Amino acid sequence: MTANATVTVTAESLRRFVTALFTRVGMSDTHAATVADVLVWADLRGVASHGVTRVPRYVELVAAGDINPRPAMQVRTDTRAAVLLDADRAAGPVAMTDGMRRAIEKARSAGVGLALVRATTHTAALGYYTLMAAREGVAALALSCSWPNMAYHGSRVAGVSTNPISIAVPGGDRGPVVLDMATGVVALGKLVQARKTGTPLAPGWALDAHGNPTTDPAAAHIPLPLGGPKGAGLSLMIELITSLVVSNPLVAETLEDTALGQRHRQNGFALAVDIARFCDLPTYRREVDRVVAALKRLPRADGAVDILVPGERGARTLAQRERDGIPLPRATVDELAALATRLGVAMFAT
Amino acid sequence: MTANATVTVTAESLRRFVTALFTRVGMSDTHAATVADVLVWADLRGVASHGVTRVPRYVELVAAGDINPRPAMQVRTDTRAAVLLDADRAAGPVAMTDGMRRAIEKARSAGVGLALVRATTHTAALGYYTLMAAREGVAALALSCSWPNMAYHGSRVAGVSTNPISIAVPGGDRGPVVLDMATGVVALGKLVQARKTGTPLAPGWALDAHGNPTTDPAAAHIPLPLGGPKGAGLSLMIELITSLVVSNPLVAETLEDTALGQRHRQNGFALAVDIARFCDLPTYRREVDRVVAALKRLPRADGAVDILVPGERGARTLAQRERDGIPLPRATVDELAALATRLGVAMFAT
Repeated sequence: MTANATVTVTAESLRRFVTALFTRVGMSDTHAATVADVLVWADLRGVASHGVTRVPRYVELVAAGDINPRPAMQVRTDTRAAVLLDADRAAGPVAMTDGMRRAIEKARSAGVGLALVRATTHTAALGYYTLMAAREGVAALALSCSWPNMAYHGSRVAGVSTNPISIAVPGGDRGPVVLDMATGVVALGKLVQARKTGTPLAPGWALDAHGNPTTDPAAAHIPLPLGGPKGAGLSLMIELITSLVVSNPLVAETLEDTALGQRHRQNGFALAVDIARFCDLPTYRREVDRVVAALKRLPRADGAVDILVPGERGARTLAQRERDGIPLPRATVDELAALATRLGVAMFAT
Repeated sequence: MTANATVTVTAESLRRFVTALFTRVGMSDTHAATVADVLVWADLRGVASHGVTRVPRYVELVAAGDINPRPAMQVRTDTRAAVLLDADRAAGPVAMTDGMRRAIEKARSAGVGLALVRATTHTAALGYYTLMAAREGVAALALSCSWPNMAYHGSRVAGVSTNPISIAVPGGDRGPVVLDMATGVVALGKLVQARKTGTPLAPGWALDAHGNPTTDPAAAHIPLPLGGPKGAGLSLMIELITSLVVSNPLVAETLEDTALGQRHRQNGFALAVDIARFCDLPTYRREVDRVVAALKRLPRADGAVDILVPGERGARTLAQRERDGIPLPRATVDELAALATRLGVAMFAT
């Protein structure tokens, strides 16, 4: 067995297992199933960093009191087109699906709808929520904020987060188009992966623990922002337009090293646009397919095998993994098995 | 006199001059003054690429019938929280200030407000419009779309636009924070500047006319997207969530080489969030200043003189240039003087 050995599991088995685990630590069946669906979706899409590998950490966060398994989520502000949803430290998938659902409802009545989600926890793969909207013929934009884990441009330490942005729109025969990107030049998961495999990093990807640029995967400590001031600035604006509006600042608390700043906390922003209010939806869908087709006909760059649109690779991987199962690294499976034993939950069949 | 010689002019003289020019080509005094204010603002902020250097091109666009100097702008869709504003080929500053004004009004009544702006023309510096909102205590996000001028990731030709994104929020004593960034790794203006000065480009900035990567400023033809698939994907999503929703596709028309695709056309997206509906605005302002202060205290990277937040350098430049005047390149002044002579408008004093 090599370090790259994998175990294949069906999405359904994995969902059932993860649901059982989160039920065991106190979540309702519905909430546990939502968390399971969002995490397993990331594995189906090939985004392992946001998949079930996070389960042990989520369980720790429940034990530490950072994730509230029985949140009393409530709408604090309710305007014609927006809500401020206090998530009461719910698991991110529970809070963000609720937020996006409310944003879609507001958009249906007001043309555009916004849910500001306060005090959620790890929001998982943001594309899940924007795709929820796109599947219903609604365009969506989502942002999420976490604590500083990325260098701020001009500094040698973490100052902002890799705060992601996701935008999704409905499509035609080719399906929705969904972008889900972090504001770092590379995902943290990619640095971890390079460390495991010993692959040198590209210049401009990371700083070491002393704040110096490094290409040594073992020394890489924090990622650099996408395009320097652009990624750092975009990340900061996401904090300002989300965390500060919901009165739950993350960056300042951590940089000032307050007690609150050491806690696991996140905030989210979910915007929905009911495009059928502005145009003919069937025409819109055809136009999405049309521009995608036009891009795919462009002459290829040297070495480029294919021209892809946002979310296309993930959709292909999902189709394949729904059929053939999800390959999980043996290390992840072992960790989940240990957790299952500890919590007295039956392990999934492999 | 060197190629770098500049002529200094006050903002007020420049605004008067540009207003007179656009009045002469048929705009109302109000519209001409709006265009002048937006262009001169870019020069005040140090963003010469979006300043009065654009005036001759705008005049050409009026002559070609692409900019309509007497637009009959009208709201086509009006929902509780959103409008679709058909700009009837108005000058971008006229359409976008109107759009942002409407988005702010909707946000005041509905919490969030959206204006989708159809069939505008060159939107100029997007930060002007988000800052309009921020000055009134409202957070804003704006997008704009134009024709393909940037390589799509994986292709060797232009496939998408350098479509910018701007986000602004009100601040406290330090003033608003405003990000205004293109989705290209560098602005087109920077490539032009490098060509003029013969400065080699960084790798990853541009392709030559044959679609091969180049660092030769004379050979640089199109910019590459910020972070490869990220910038290309973000640009595409901006087209999909803006141009396609307002039924005025730009990218597909150009890539398919239709007659419409050869015309100068843009679309815009202006979103406003009335943050006072969700939190205490004075506290919000203090929190913005607080996080900015925390970032500025971070240890500096080697070679970094200062840690800046989005829009800070522009605000400093504006304060200095409002006092000392705007230095314009002699070439720009000569071009404006020729235009003034041709149109029979008095040149500004230098």
